[in-house]
Amino acid sequence: MMETRKPIPVSEAVMKVVDHAYALGTETVSLENSYNRILAEPVIAAHPVPPFDRSPYDGYAIISKFSAGACGEHRISFDIVDHIGAGEVSREILTGTKAVRIMTGAPLPENSDAIVMFEQAVEFDGSFTIRKPFEPLENVSLQGEDVSQGEKVIESGSLIQPGTVALLATFGYAQVEVSKQPTIGILSTGSELLDVAEKLVPGKIRNSNGPMIAAQLARMGIACKTYGLSADKLDESFEIVQQAAAETDCLITTGGVSVGDFDFLPAIYERLGAQVLFNKVAMRPGSVTTVAVADGKYLFGLSGNPSACFTGFELFVRPALLKMMGARKIYLPHTTAILSEDFTKANPFTRFIRAAYDGQNIKPAGFNKSNAVASIAKGNALIVLPGGTRGFTAGDTVDVLLLGVEEGQAEWKL
Amino acid sequence: MMETRKPIPVSEAVMKVVDHAYALGTETVSLENSYNRILAEPVIAAHPVPPFDRSPYDGYAIISKFSAGACGEHRISFDIVDHIGAGEVSREILTGTKAVRIMTGAPLPENSDAIVMFEQAVEFDGSFTIRKPFEPLENVSLQGEDVSQGEKVIESGSLIQPGTVALLATFGYAQVEVSKQPTIGILSTGSELLDVAEKLVPGKIRNSNGPMIAAQLARMGIACKTYGLSADKLDESFEIVQQAAAETDCLITTGGVSVGDFDFLPAIYERLGAQVLFNKVAMRPGSVTTVAVADGKYLFGLSGNPSACFTGFELFVRPALLKMMGARKIYLPHTTAILSEDFTKANPFTRFIRAAYDGQNIKPAGFNKSNAVASIAKGNALIVLPGGTRGFTAGDTVDVLLLGVEEGQAEWKL
Repeated sequence: MMETRKPIPVSEAVMKVVDHAYALGTETVSLENSYNRILAEPVIAAHPVPPFDRSPYDGYAIISKFSAGACGEHRISFDIVDHIGAGEVSREILTGTKAVRIMTGAPLPENSDAIVMFEQAVEFDGSFTIRKPFEPLENVSLQGEDVSQGEKVIESGSLIQPGTVALLATFGYAQVEVSKQPTIGILSTGSELLDVAEKLVPGKIRNSNGPMIAAQLARMGIACKTYGLSADKLDESFEIVQQAAAETDCLITTGGVSVGDFDFLPAIYERLGAQVLFNKVAMRPGSVTTVAVADGKYLFGLSGNPSACFTGFELFVRPALLKMMGARKIYLPHTTAILSEDFTKANPFTRFIRAAYDGQNIKPAGFNKSNAVASIAKGNALIVLPGGTRGFTAGDTVDVLLLGVEEGQAEWKL
Repeated sequence: MMETRKPIPVSEAVMKVVDHAYALGTETVSLENSYNRILAEPVIAAHPVPPFDRSPYDGYAIISKFSAGACGEHRISFDIVDHIGAGEVSREILTGTKAVRIMTGAPLPENSDAIVMFEQAVEFDGSFTIRKPFEPLENVSLQGEDVSQGEKVIESGSLIQPGTVALLATFGYAQVEVSKQPTIGILSTGSELLDVAEKLVPGKIRNSNGPMIAAQLARMGIACKTYGLSADKLDESFEIVQQAAAETDCLITTGGVSVGDFDFLPAIYERLGAQVLFNKVAMRPGSVTTVAVADGKYLFGLSGNPSACFTGFELFVRPALLKMMGARKIYLPHTTAILSEDFTKANPFTRFIRAAYDGQNIKPAGFNKSNAVASIAKGNALIVLPGGTRGFTAGDTVDVLLLGVEEGQAEWKL
């Protein structure tokens, strides 16, 4: 009567999922709408940065060799023949001890090769004196010292963060080629589910997974289409799943993937002719997490238990979507931290614990069961305890996956 | 001739800024629009979670005491008198060895106090047998075990992350009270600035700070109004600043805050009657960062140098805006990491270096000058080296502030 499922290791499940990602193609967005998108082209320097030799200080541009021998007892005087701010180009061609009063960011006048900072000079009546010699290129910000022309500064597949925006602006990318975002459908299944606005009645609970997944997608900058709630009825659910799968690049369902009498997702996958990549993972929570592919599209069957659903999204859905978008860093960032309280349960399978991480120490964020919801709200990380281990004690160093970080890591390290 | 400014320590500058934040008030948003907003009310449990004793497994609900004495040689048989899925309530009141076939999430039938999992039973023709006794409450998910009714689960001032959304949904918050977001203006000053779409000409560079700050705000979920570019002209700039300050809660300018001949922000602050909180910070880059307050509103005068501008935003603007929004965790998250290459420069002042952090090691993200732009795009963290220190070498543990993390820390730790 019981269907027997063979659990596969988490790392194998992750690899199986990301292996099936197809590329979504690209689109052009304006620079101001590019934050949090994935670059679909490398950023190539169209010109050097800085684009010209410039003054990094407010001061005076001089020809350094005419400062030779300056000292406190023998100050050398320069004549100020021009005065430029940033954005201005001096027409003077310097010779001898002619100098230009110059502001930060302005290009060096012709023949000048050093900048005397204001605080290194005494100005009086159209000239100034210095009491030390200046080296060629002293206090000069050189053309190309930050970026050389033609240099590939940022690789395709990088997340566009604010610094990337600055770089794109520097090189004149008013439009940016980015990866298209997937169209995602969310369908929450379960006869026990009420909508968030409904009144609680005996035996029922409100649907928290649907809104949570929508927020997990929003965190990635991805919109979604909600297919509402579906009772545990095979034919009805099949029709909704079929329609949703046709309308989206990827359908995320919650619930219905276990072996209960009303868990119809396995039967629906079969009717759709979907290839089930796995339906059991050696992990807690979320062991029943199922991922299938139909017509190249993902069908993510997440557990109906909130903590399991949350973890399944972060471990499997997130990297798959990022891979579809051509991202290079698709995995949650990994670090290690010091466990600040005992965790005495044994771990027959890899365990993911919603946890509060403070940059050094970490502890479980609350009640630890797959159906817990409060701990998801209180956590900002997942503690990962390997399967086959006994309890852990305060002071142990544990693996941690960080949540809510803009860009992840390129390698799955667990 | 030179104005002398007294630098103040970074920590003092941060405190001066956040001390001047005024609260923006609150507004109501729908749950689906609540991600990344700041909760303006605590989340109080309107009911226990779970709301009723329920089965965490697919199996059979029994009265435990009638399982006493069961063993391999003496299997005890139970009669299945009902069959419920999640969302259903059994009308049966159990007695003796009557049992209900029950699915995950369904409420325990009256009188039952334990769940026999499918794999713990052999079912045949309307009944099943077990070979071990069950304890009272064995395999039961108890009402309130996750959250008690009336419990304050999440504090006001918390960032709404996906787990928070799940919790809000659980308790029926279709609408959520959140802090209003500030209206931010951005004005980029400097005669050298071209718009991103303009062709490069001698002596000019494109404005990268304006788009970068807009993206730094977008990362916080905050929109902004751009006041374009302003040449270094006092009267014109004053009028734009005055107008922008009147139309926004906070005006961020870039450039014009140093002591150059065309740095007019100090004069503008004076004309506005603004109180300058500081105009020199003992830090690199960004020592000229200036923060003023006029009519209670912030005027952030960030450096025109991209790296300095970026750092000034993250250190001063970000916590100030979060404080205005009533957030509790307003500072960049702090951690430590191992420097993976030498950094030989001495640090007369606190130094912030754009850096690439991989969860364990960290290294400068490239060319390290205040006018660098590539390193902002390549970094995901800031190394913080204390003022008064000499060079650091590979293997040293250094302070790190993480960028692009959803929620920060409540304490400034540096």
